[in-house]
Amino acid sequence: MRPEVFDLTKEFRDRFQQAIKERDNIFIQESLEDINPADITSLLYEFNGEESKYVLDLLSLEVRSKIINDLDPDARKTFLVSNYEASEITAIVNFLDSDDAADILNELPIKMSEEIIAQLESDLKSQVIDLLRYDENVAGGLMAKELIKAKDYWTVVQCVDEIRIQAEHVTKFYAVYVVDDHDKLLGRVSLQKLILSDPKTIVKDICEGDIVSVETYMEDREVAEIMSKYDLESVPVVNVQGHLVGRITIDDVVDVITEQAEEERQIMSGITEDVEEDDSVWRNTRARLPWLLIGILGGMISARFMGFFEGEIAKITAIAFFIPLIQATGGNVGIQSSSLVVQSLVNHAFVNEGLWKRLVKVFSVALLNGFFLALIVYGVTWLTFGHDSLNLIVSIALFFVVVFASFVGTVTPLLLDRLGFNPALASGPFITTTNDLLGLGVYFLTIHILL
Amino acid sequence: MRPEVFDLTKEFRDRFQQAIKERDNIFIQESLEDINPADITSLLYEFNGEESKYVLDLLSLEVRSKIINDLDPDARKTFLVSNYEASEITAIVNFLDSDDAADILNELPIKMSEEIIAQLESDLKSQVIDLLRYDENVAGGLMAKELIKAKDYWTVVQCVDEIRIQAEHVTKFYAVYVVDDHDKLLGRVSLQKLILSDPKTIVKDICEGDIVSVETYMEDREVAEIMSKYDLESVPVVNVQGHLVGRITIDDVVDVITEQAEEERQIMSGITEDVEEDDSVWRNTRARLPWLLIGILGGMISARFMGFFEGEIAKITAIAFFIPLIQATGGNVGIQSSSLVVQSLVNHAFVNEGLWKRLVKVFSVALLNGFFLALIVYGVTWLTFGHDSLNLIVSIALFFVVVFASFVGTVTPLLLDRLGFNPALASGPFITTTNDLLGLGVYFLTIHILL
Repeated sequence: MRPEVFDLTKEFRDRFQQAIKERDNIFIQESLEDINPADITSLLYEFNGEESKYVLDLLSLEVRSKIINDLDPDARKTFLVSNYEASEITAIVNFLDSDDAADILNELPIKMSEEIIAQLESDLKSQVIDLLRYDENVAGGLMAKELIKAKDYWTVVQCVDEIRIQAEHVTKFYAVYVVDDHDKLLGRVSLQKLILSDPKTIVKDICEGDIVSVETYMEDREVAEIMSKYDLESVPVVNVQGHLVGRITIDDVVDVITEQAEEERQIMSGITEDVEEDDSVWRNTRARLPWLLIGILGGMISARFMGFFEGEIAKITAIAFFIPLIQATGGNVGIQSSSLVVQSLVNHAFVNEGLWKRLVKVFSVALLNGFFLALIVYGVTWLTFGHDSLNLIVSIALFFVVVFASFVGTVTPLLLDRLGFNPALASGPFITTTNDLLGLGVYFLTIHILL
Repeated sequence: MRPEVFDLTKEFRDRFQQAIKERDNIFIQESLEDINPADITSLLYEFNGEESKYVLDLLSLEVRSKIINDLDPDARKTFLVSNYEASEITAIVNFLDSDDAADILNELPIKMSEEIIAQLESDLKSQVIDLLRYDENVAGGLMAKELIKAKDYWTVVQCVDEIRIQAEHVTKFYAVYVVDDHDKLLGRVSLQKLILSDPKTIVKDICEGDIVSVETYMEDREVAEIMSKYDLESVPVVNVQGHLVGRITIDDVVDVITEQAEEERQIMSGITEDVEEDDSVWRNTRARLPWLLIGILGGMISARFMGFFEGEIAKITAIAFFIPLIQATGGNVGIQSSSLVVQSLVNHAFVNEGLWKRLVKVFSVALLNGFFLALIVYGVTWLTFGHDSLNLIVSIALFFVVVFASFVGTVTPLLLDRLGFNPALASGPFITTTNDLLGLGVYFLTIHILL
């Protein structure tokens, strides 16, 4: 039997809703019996907090804790705080790995999380307290304390015994980490090596020594880069003394990569808070206003600026007609340039190629693009608006706008990166607005000189 | 000893360059001896093709094949075609997993890849030929043929023996897949279970039955979603008959997720071809032109459109002053809206909340934002440009532009998604240009009615 990936239909949803209303516990339990907890999570998003809790209470503590762990952090916080007692959450957290437990406790109000921590099983309690010391976005905040550790002088048999002891706490592991008597990390033994080795082999003899590890204070995006560069499914975390304190698995890093993409999308579209469509109207409004205000400010400055050319515009109204053309092109060229730079910064490709060589190339592309576009605009305006000296001026201005915007779009992310900011900011509101203003400036300057 | 992550310094690079020039093979080999192949890959990006090949030829075939496998696909294609003979590539490919081998062969010119396939070791040859049948962006194109298979009636000992036989071909595995005599997938046994079980246990008794699998023709982004939803480090691939044909590991999926983020960035910034900063000037120019032309077209239409209002502009030049303000705000609101929708589509969050409820919310946020911005603009223009009926008109127009752009920005990605296109297109050039035009239209219509 090949299990199908669960497909949530409207019919099932409605039937389920009814079952909740009618307290039809048998239907609820039977229909969820063979379903993967991850699918139950998706299903619960369809119901409100109270209904979800009703369903969860009918499931085993193990499944319940898996589902709570799968929830979107923002949704989870509200859900837990408004529907659960501290003691109920304690029971759930007791079933989680230390890293997931710490994540949930981090989200809850301090009073509640302290109450829960006090009641946790003693092993998990000390692990969680240790983990809560780290920021969420460093290796220490990503790692789990659960891992299989072996001493280098053990035999394979001792190692397997240790796995047997630990296996109940450590749900997923790909390797055994080898340490000395002071917990200093020496290397790792993969499970496949362990399976294939003679039981009497000494761990030291099958241990890979030269393994990649990360330090507790390394940033999460650096951890993600290292794991994907070296193709690691898990990486040990050591403290400054080189002592093994935890491990990070690839699934946590996949979350980091996904979040990064989301963050970049928000930066590029000028949303200032970490907001989702389902947040409140007020929060959504607030998250959007800052950029919109920057745009408004730019627009106001543009208006003031054009005031200086009132005479020219009054004389030849058609000057105004081409403002959208000039601004759109400047903006587009700027965003294209900066996003290519951001991409090569993300990929660490050719960063050392040298600023100079890079600028020459950007400049060549800009000249070519500017030339083509100016030519096209000249041709089209000539055909549609008739022959006029303004056509030539618009085309020349466009050429300069393209070259200028390419330069700004290329240099800004490089500068931001050098100064330690996220270079994706360059595709965001502030720079777009600056580019708009520059384009307008170039346009009117050209008119002023040539007309 | 805790190994450091290799840090490439300019000094080392220069010293290495000199060593290549002087054919100082001893220096080259000694300095690379303890370095992770992934780090050598980064180092090679600093040198040209000929130099890189010189260095690679000094390394073992195993390390060499790892490095070639790590290279960026575009860079690799050019590098291999211009520096290597088919026979040299054959030797390298023979060291790779079937999925990586197929990727490289897919990149090479057909004549060259056929020559190489003909010379491959027979096992790899048939696997590669099988893999080349699939598109790159479906499960079949991502999967590797190397996996450990066990019959359900085997004992643990037989299973371990099979691992011993296969281990030389299969570099990384997390589980043994259980099949019947017809290769139909029945389940999996994790390595940890295998380690902890009595050698005489029958595989069937420790086999997890209800496991997630994907079909060969499933799209890569769907595979990525499933693996991250169910937190899988590897997933078996089956054909339509349910027969096990390969497996996909999480590291391949990390690549898919990273590429998706890159693709989205390119779509959002209107770059039409898969282009990188280090591609040729001509290719860069060509990849950027289409969007720029859409922008130009929009600008031209704007110009024609404003022609209808020439009389109004000639009478009150200040009408022109606020064009940038109106357009920038419309564009910004549109991008914010669409990127929030794209995000919730990506997260599959609340997709079933109902279009209606969603639109009401978007509308509320738009009304609030529009109201604030109109108020601010009215106040500021009143203070800086003096009291004038145009102030009021600009503010009112702005309000409508915000509401309108929110609507377009929200509906477009939903529509694109429904029609099977990538919703991120909504943040791209075409929609931005449409929004620019709509904003201008609303502005001049308001002027026409109210002035």
